[in-house]
Amino acid sequence: MDLTGQHILSSDQFDLETLDALYDTADLLVSVAKGRQLIRILEGAVLASLFFEPSTRTRLSFDAAFMRLGGAVSHTTGVVFSSIMKGASIADTARVISGYADVMVIRHEDENAIVESAQASLVPVINGGNGAGEHPTQALLDLYTIRSEFQCLGREINGSRVALVGDLKYGRTIHSLIKLLSLHQNLTIVCVSPPHLTCPQVYLDLAAKAGHRIEICADLCTGIAGCDLLYATRIQAERAGEDVLNLAGSGDFRITKAKLNAYCLPHCVVMHPLPRDSRLGAQDLAEDTKADPRLAIFRQSDSGVPVRMALFAHVLGIAKKIAPSLKNSVWSSK
Amino acid sequence: MDLTGQHILSSDQFDLETLDALYDTADLLVSVAKGRQLIRILEGAVLASLFFEPSTRTRLSFDAAFMRLGGAVSHTTGVVFSSIMKGASIADTARVISGYADVMVIRHEDENAIVESAQASLVPVINGGNGAGEHPTQALLDLYTIRSEFQCLGREINGSRVALVGDLKYGRTIHSLIKLLSLHQNLTIVCVSPPHLTCPQVYLDLAAKAGHRIEICADLCTGIAGCDLLYATRIQAERAGEDVLNLAGSGDFRITKAKLNAYCLPHCVVMHPLPRDSRLGAQDLAEDTKADPRLAIFRQSDSGVPVRMALFAHVLGIAKKIAPSLKNSVWSSK
Amino acid sequence: MDLTGQHILSSDQFDLETLDALYDTADLLVSVAKGRQLIRILEGAVLASLFFEPSTRTRLSFDAAFMRLGGAVSHTTGVVFSSIMKGASIADTARVISGYADVMVIRHEDENAIVESAQASLVPVINGGNGAGEHPTQALLDLYTIRSEFQCLGREINGSRVALVGDLKYGRTIHSLIKLLSLHQNLTIVCVSPPHLTCPQVYLDLAAKAGHRIEICADLCTGIAGCDLLYATRIQAERAGEDVLNLAGSGDFRITKAKLNAYCLPHCVVMHPLPRDSRLGAQDLAEDTKADPRLAIFRQSDSGVPVRMALFAHVLGIAKKIAPSLKNSVWSSK
Repeated sequence: MDLTGQHILSSDQFDLETLDALYDTADLLVSVAKGRQLIRILEGAVLASLFFEPSTRTRLSFDAAFMRLGGAVSHTTGVVFSSIMKGASIADTARVISGYADVMVIRHEDENAIVESAQASLVPVINGGNGAGEHPTQALLDLYTIRSEFQCLGREINGSRVALVGDLKYGRTIHSLIKLLSLHQNLTIVCVSPPHLTCPQVYLDLAAKAGHRIEICADLCTGIAGCDLLYATRIQAERAGEDVLNLAGSGDFRITKAKLNAYCLPHCVVMHPLPRDSRLGAQDLAEDTKADPRLAIFRQSDSGVPVRMALFAHVLGIAKKIAPSLKNSVWSSK
Repeated sequence: MDLTGQHILSSDQFDLETLDALYDTADLLVSVAKGRQLIRILEGAVLASLFFEPSTRTRLSFDAAFMRLGGAVSHTTGVVFSSIMKGASIADTARVISGYADVMVIRHEDENAIVESAQASLVPVINGGNGAGEHPTQALLDLYTIRSEFQCLGREINGSRVALVGDLKYGRTIHSLIKLLSLHQNLTIVCVSPPHLTCPQVYLDLAAKAGHRIEICADLCTGIAGCDLLYATRIQAERAGEDVLNLAGSGDFRITKAKLNAYCLPHCVVMHPLPRDSRLGAQDLAEDTKADPRLAIFRQSDSGVPVRMALFAHVLGIAKKIAPSLKNSVWSSK
Repeated sequence: MDLTGQHILSSDQFDLETLDALYDTADLLVSVAKGRQLIRILEGAVLASLFFEPSTRTRLSFDAAFMRLGGAVSHTTGVVFSSIMKGASIADTARVISGYADVMVIRHEDENAIVESAQASLVPVINGGNGAGEHPTQALLDLYTIRSEFQCLGREINGSRVALVGDLKYGRTIHSLIKLLSLHQNLTIVCVSPPHLTCPQVYLDLAAKAGHRIEICADLCTGIAGCDLLYATRIQAERAGEDVLNLAGSGDFRITKAKLNAYCLPHCVVMHPLPRDSRLGAQDLAEDTKADPRLAIFRQSDSGVPVRMALFAHVLGIAKKIAPSLKNSVWSSK
């Protein structure tokens, strides 16, 4: 599917062919994301970045992606915008700002706000995360990372065993990722979570309908044993509300070095959308896993920039102009 | 008047000849504002955008204007700045920041703060709205919109009937607009507001002295009947204070589809500075007017970018270099 | 020392040779900082500017420096970042964001946070001020200003009498400056403060060990008499805590026009890191000194841009490419 001029609202929009095209562009842009090459193709273009719900990392990743294509970014952040307080509708706000920009990224706690914004907008809207709904660019960079990691290991995604761990109920990242994983073949998806935070049935049905095997598991060690991919998530206290209180008796979901060594295969790829809760005793991926080469979490966050660059390139119809426009940078880079 | 190097503090500064020059430049820049063309003439220049009082739309409009000329924008937002809290004067702050930038936009709740800043600044200061005082760039884009809309309709501004509706007491947008309208000839200006929110006498005197006819009206339907231009504004609860409480018995100032159809001429141009209060029952321009082609409110907000670009171009002395510097953009635009 | 690829964490890192190289680059960039020339050498590069502790002026000075080299800036500000609230470590945050950028500036209230960030980062980290610790770029611009001012006056830094006035206990600017001043020869450093806010012994020892003479003085007028350089600082209520309450009986630390005229030499250079507390009665540099030509406080803040540009140029390894890349700007400049 040609993404030129399209809104990017959900992982549902992507088929494997579209993903292949997008990831080919991302591959071209990795050296730009690292500062080794540069490209100025979007000089003169403006991104309006509207983070009604804060997310420093996601916002800065979009910034870097647009800026490294040569474009300029205009922001607004914070739960309460001045005009929204005065009774302005999200549709009016989106329509007005779309008149200033060439593309908008919106993050909003309300699941419907981004769809309403897209309907009112003159320019493409990219969903930067909407409440418990979706986070499609996170899913895109996750799958890009899985592909890269599996390729380095000489393995296939099709047929692999995938453990999804943590808060599978409110974790929108997981929901968007299940949709993209389901485009592949013959996966075993193991949903590992406390009983109060199991994955909504709609996503399980979607994966099952696509021919994948689903396993539900409330015990961490059993769930991650023998998986090719371990995708961990944080128990998000701010979304889970009362459910977290019920977590007390739910067993241990802390992923430690000892558990990785005891239960995970040598080729297992360990991912996490970050931020993780690094505090001692948090039900999350522990700091002591730091030196484990299976940990792909920072290669994963790094890949957010080339993937988001590729998305901008396709939505703005310039993907085919990338390769001939690359130049070497002159500054000291990583 | 040549605006090069000038502070833009008030609508008072503009005569028709200056406006003509400014609007000619804006006309050239409409295609850049829409992303169809690009210009990089301000590459290397820095705008300091200081919004002591928040206004997302105004701030982003200035951003887009400066960025689309090739410049970079450095911001600070929020009522309380760190240094101001520590006892720093606005003059010190403005002087220091003027040392970093080529031009500053300042919005401040205090009417005098922007004048003090301009006195201390090394570079031109543009008033982005000062309390109940002025909002000259809004007035400039409003008049630009009126000219464009009237031109499309084959009508003259001179001799027309203009209804100004809503909070005419605290609405600085209205005050700045009256000054610019008064540069024209033979207008009938109908001030339509609750008795507690009538237009300050100083602005009425100014218009009367310029030869225009003033009518005061406390009834919405009577006030808007037969006007060529209906300029609606929000009743700004945050400025009006107690006066709003007195509004209860003041009649209905909600402008609905039904009222537009019943009282307004087919060629009437309906404007609003936005944001409007879209909540049901708000004393503002109602959502149900959406499909009415007379509604120019988004063409109006869109025009903020080329008008502000033109203002930067004139203040920074590069207006004559615009036309030969335009290039076509390569990305998909609106 | 070649600064390419280095973190800039402390004034300790600089020797006179490194400073000479840095200041030579800064000299080249003064005309760019003023908008008279431009350079686009960092086009495509991204600065991540992380101000966990707010400081409008310092942040905007870094912005202008990076933007005027052609680079783009991605920000986050505020004491509480979204991910930090969710238990993310500063190391994780810094590592992730370093994957997006070519260089980071970090300001943080915790003295150790910036060192931890540097350890985790893929790219150079510049300390933008860490709590009561250091503020090395302020010290760099201060010394640059002292050199420029003394040069204009035809005087030597070596052998001069320097009065440091105000809060010498918590003022990190003073601490970083003492380190750089100590690289010179035969200074007399007069520490003028209330007894509760004297300079920590570690800095006095450092200066003494470098062969400078230290004098401690609790009386303003005695302390500033006959100095060649008067470096004033604000009594920072937000850091000083209870100590400020003890200030009541400590005498008068307000530097007025009358005192400058009575006690300071005609060639004395008066500096201040700003912001100063301009309120009547504040224990700071008073507004009435405004017209005194000895006041270098705004030449000092202006110099922050070329000095920070030079620092970016050296850290990113492009200092030698500056001179041949300069072009004249086309807009009206200061």
